[in-house]
Amino acid sequence: MAIKRRKISVVGGGFTGTTTALMAAQKELGDVVLVDIPKMEDPTKGKALDMLEASPVQGFDSKITGTSDYRDTADSDIVVITAGIPRKPGMSRDDLVSTNAGIMKSVTKEIVKYSPDCFILVLTNPVDAMTYSVFQESGFPKNRVIGQSGVLDTARFNTFIAEELNVSVEDVTGFVLGGHGDDMVPMLRYSFAGGIPLEKLISQERLAAIVERTRKGGGEIVNLLGTGSAYYAPAASLVQMMEAILKDKKRILPSIAYLEGEYGYEDIYLGVPTILGGNGIEKIFELDLNEEEKEALNKSAESVKEVMKLVK
Amino acid sequence: MAIKRRKISVVGGGFTGTTTALMAAQKELGDVVLVDIPKMEDPTKGKALDMLEASPVQGFDSKITGTSDYRDTADSDIVVITAGIPRKPGMSRDDLVSTNAGIMKSVTKEIVKYSPDCFILVLTNPVDAMTYSVFQESGFPKNRVIGQSGVLDTARFNTFIAEELNVSVEDVTGFVLGGHGDDMVPMLRYSFAGGIPLEKLISQERLAAIVERTRKGGGEIVNLLGTGSAYYAPAASLVQMMEAILKDKKRILPSIAYLEGEYGYEDIYLGVPTILGGNGIEKIFELDLNEEEKEALNKSAESVKEVMKLVK
Amino acid sequence: MAIKRRKISVVGGGFTGTTTALMAAQKELGDVVLVDIPKMEDPTKGKALDMLEASPVQGFDSKITGTSDYRDTADSDIVVITAGIPRKPGMSRDDLVSTNAGIMKSVTKEIVKYSPDCFILVLTNPVDAMTYSVFQESGFPKNRVIGQSGVLDTARFNTFIAEELNVSVEDVTGFVLGGHGDDMVPMLRYSFAGGIPLEKLISQERLAAIVERTRKGGGEIVNLLGTGSAYYAPAASLVQMMEAILKDKKRILPSIAYLEGEYGYEDIYLGVPTILGGNGIEKIFELDLNEEEKEALNKSAESVKEVMKLVK
Amino acid sequence: MAIKRRKISVVGGGFTGTTTALMAAQKELGDVVLVDIPKMEDPTKGKALDMLEASPVQGFDSKITGTSDYRDTADSDIVVITAGIPRKPGMSRDDLVSTNAGIMKSVTKEIVKYSPDCFILVLTNPVDAMTYSVFQESGFPKNRVIGQSGVLDTARFNTFIAEELNVSVEDVTGFVLGGHGDDMVPMLRYSFAGGIPLEKLISQERLAAIVERTRKGGGEIVNLLGTGSAYYAPAASLVQMMEAILKDKKRILPSIAYLEGEYGYEDIYLGVPTILGGNGIEKIFELDLNEEEKEALNKSAESVKEVMKLVK
Repeated sequence: MAIKRRKISVVGGGFTGTTTALMAAQKELGDVVLVDIPKMEDPTKGKALDMLEASPVQGFDSKITGTSDYRDTADSDIVVITAGIPRKPGMSRDDLVSTNAGIMKSVTKEIVKYSPDCFILVLTNPVDAMTYSVFQESGFPKNRVIGQSGVLDTARFNTFIAEELNVSVEDVTGFVLGGHGDDMVPMLRYSFAGGIPLEKLISQERLAAIVERTRKGGGEIVNLLGTGSAYYAPAASLVQMMEAILKDKKRILPSIAYLEGEYGYEDIYLGVPTILGGNGIEKIFELDLNEEEKEALNKSAESVKEVMKLVK
Repeated sequence: MAIKRRKISVVGGGFTGTTTALMAAQKELGDVVLVDIPKMEDPTKGKALDMLEASPVQGFDSKITGTSDYRDTADSDIVVITAGIPRKPGMSRDDLVSTNAGIMKSVTKEIVKYSPDCFILVLTNPVDAMTYSVFQESGFPKNRVIGQSGVLDTARFNTFIAEELNVSVEDVTGFVLGGHGDDMVPMLRYSFAGGIPLEKLISQERLAAIVERTRKGGGEIVNLLGTGSAYYAPAASLVQMMEAILKDKKRILPSIAYLEGEYGYEDIYLGVPTILGGNGIEKIFELDLNEEEKEALNKSAESVKEVMKLVK
Repeated sequence: MAIKRRKISVVGGGFTGTTTALMAAQKELGDVVLVDIPKMEDPTKGKALDMLEASPVQGFDSKITGTSDYRDTADSDIVVITAGIPRKPGMSRDDLVSTNAGIMKSVTKEIVKYSPDCFILVLTNPVDAMTYSVFQESGFPKNRVIGQSGVLDTARFNTFIAEELNVSVEDVTGFVLGGHGDDMVPMLRYSFAGGIPLEKLISQERLAAIVERTRKGGGEIVNLLGTGSAYYAPAASLVQMMEAILKDKKRILPSIAYLEGEYGYEDIYLGVPTILGGNGIEKIFELDLNEEEKEALNKSAESVKEVMKLVK
Repeated sequence: MAIKRRKISVVGGGFTGTTTALMAAQKELGDVVLVDIPKMEDPTKGKALDMLEASPVQGFDSKITGTSDYRDTADSDIVVITAGIPRKPGMSRDDLVSTNAGIMKSVTKEIVKYSPDCFILVLTNPVDAMTYSVFQESGFPKNRVIGQSGVLDTARFNTFIAEELNVSVEDVTGFVLGGHGDDMVPMLRYSFAGGIPLEKLISQERLAAIVERTRKGGGEIVNLLGTGSAYYAPAASLVQMMEAILKDKKRILPSIAYLEGEYGYEDIYLGVPTILGGNGIEKIFELDLNEEEKEALNKSAESVKEVMKLVK
């Protein structure tokens, strides 16, 4: 009968995993367990402790702990997977996929063992295929296995639009479908600033440039950093999805969701607009697409399917 | 007559500087400029952009930019210095001090040139001496040059106490005087949980162990991480001081302040309880110390003075 | 050179004024002075003190004071006018207008005397005419005199839509033009849930009912309360506009703005989409209207003009 | 397995009840049901709707509804009782007590019927006796029936101290024991600003005046308002206790708790320092009292007992 804090586990103690833990704790969404491989146990504990030591100053009551033992994740309400390797120079895409798919399988086994009722959010790339892999391995219903890409792509798009118009980020609402990065399908017809269609505010040329910049958004950060990739905006995106579920907010957010006929696709994980609430993905919205959008979405789906073949 | 956002510059684009920028932006304290050396310009821009891309999701309107050009810091309300090198194996303390003092001097010159009216917060170690160095170089009045150590030491102490008692971090109020780390003077008589003196709640033995753990708090993180040092709690501490000044909150917080007779010391920067508000350090509280505390503070001051000799 | 808190004055210590003071203080937007007539000085002081006594618990550092002396409002950054009488049974509209216009004039004189550089936000009904009256009396430039109605109308519309769809209020973005209440011009083409046009999600019939309910939104509350009118949502709306200005957020929000040719109107205050930032109204967006919308806006403008005649 | 929002019911749709609902919703602690008697159903619905219409602007997803039907409170996690009559001129204290005790009994019956597992927070005066009455009627274990008075008394005390010292309210931590108002036992030894004992910062004379003002804090507001009594700070206090329980924060807060031997008292509800968490009152702290404090507490307890006789 006692009221318990929610429990969140984050698999992968790299920058994204750590920042996700911080942002979840700052919002007091629950206690956070950061899990990494045994070799990384001490650094993971160190980062968790450092974040915990920020809590009296930032005023949040969320315990943050680091571990390499999945028993510590037991009874999580939600588990986020950020583990996986990035593509290294000279590595084929197939090698990347099979390595990360292997990681997904072993990680999922552990998650399911200790938190059979949890929701799983996947960030690892290529995210559509990796979410599919987790879905298969977990045996979970589709509403409880969800991938992230559209929230991040939209965040980037909105940032660029807000900058272009010199307006508040709170008033820009972009919209993307499909896969991550190059496979992203920006829906300009459904993108607005203060309710005004972007096409009325920004020239076609500038809009095209912003769409292109959004598509290459991950690469832009990689190039600037020199080593490593983006983690602040990805972590914020994961936490927004997490918050929608843990507070049953019923947010309308793009998710990588399992399709069974929606948009004409079957047995595929693809980025679509959804309602995220206390049941995970509670609804998928099917939008009317014009020919151009259909084609773009199809291209995106084809590219996802090809990668998924490697996983199945 | 127009209302302008506050402007914050953070010198040093390492983990602490970056996390400070994020936490300041999350609170919408102002727009943030992250400055690093030319060689690091691109990574600094990359981190700033990644944080900015989190803003539509986290809902904050603070521009975050990266640069290596101090002109971009012009007219800052507050500048935080996190730049400096950590002590490397085999490096003498004197070498560390003189290297970092050199960095302080050159950085301060630039800050003062472009923001002659700003407040400066210093984090670089050894922080007492480095704050002194910035004070000298800047020619600023003492209320506008402030060092951070006590907020962080207290945050760590409070974390350990909250954990020991299993109570909210919001209800633990520890108190430290003196220098950072080993030179910290914990004032247990002035430390409470929910207003109850800690000595009534925790055994002498456990309290001593917690004090010792706090003193070594930085080292504990360093040892766990293997490479690098703490940055979450240090950044949160800087932002708390920053917020006190930018919102004129008149918080009672420990600061590294310039003493002119307080506690019997002259011409030294030392950790003491202060009021932080729109005028920076608006007041220094002089507490009655018992013999033991006086001695500990004296030891701390001696150690600071010795380092300061190297700087002067 | 010291940093000072912003200062906000709220004219009218009724429920809306008081709730506005509370919500502004909760966000630490500045210190708040609540002004009412001498007869109400004590109750106004009582409400201010009660709110102030909530500050240690809610954790905000904003002084809230009550007064009947306009000298206490000196050097406000922003002044909100909520004073005025409601329409009483048997009272003609003309009587209401002339009474409230008289109040606007005397209040504005005092505001301008003590805060010649402030921004003024007007809530008093009929709000278009009252804002015009304040504009005339103040001699202020048009960007610094702003009326509120569209934020509230939109809030009500968004609430009903979120309820209809059972989705988060964060994801509904309605859009209205024109005057308050019956004169409101809902722009369904520019209204969305999660970026999806409402017309794709809700039947024409239900949408029409929701629009009608929004138009009568003030009356619905009046009828339920039995005595008095809405104040929570109006106060929240004022604070959102205030925050946009005080933090220079450059939000895209509907404002009652002075038109000089926009939408074909001259010398009239009318509800239009604007950018609100550190310069007050920084921009007015001119949307393409279809015939139906033009007609509705014209009807709204005619009705405003008629009332304004009484004021001029 | 789905995650559900918490549910909060607030009995009494007066100013305190309504403000409690608002502040709980602003923190997204859960959905809120505001209950009042059938005669007040419409005004209660009106206030609830007005608050709900503020939610898109303030950005919270909490449903707020008004009702006179306790079935709508079913399965609440926490229920707050603010119902009851204030003492009217010419009314004997005994009449007040018996009237409000009657209200407590009937209200508790309904609460228990529909939410047998909830926590109950009581605000109605005289609060010690009313909490006892609810405890008896509910048959709930003592950890789940809690009265509020010390959080409010402390808030007032802290407000006055922060004003006296011109420091942030965040850094003042006062401490009171015993009953509400005149029976309050201020523990100056345990009251601090920034960890510094108040007695070192404020003269005995001023401190005594502040203690006296705190004791009469409710009356000060009543006198200023002319009609009615304080509701902002009382509501904030209730929400702080509610948050401690709903988020299992384990805050150290003064509660009106059932004593079984603590401080030498049996079968009495009295204000004592407690830990509030997911189990309600999880611990009572027993402080060492000096003679003066013992006497004051005893006087407070005697006065409570006398009132409780009327209830039993």
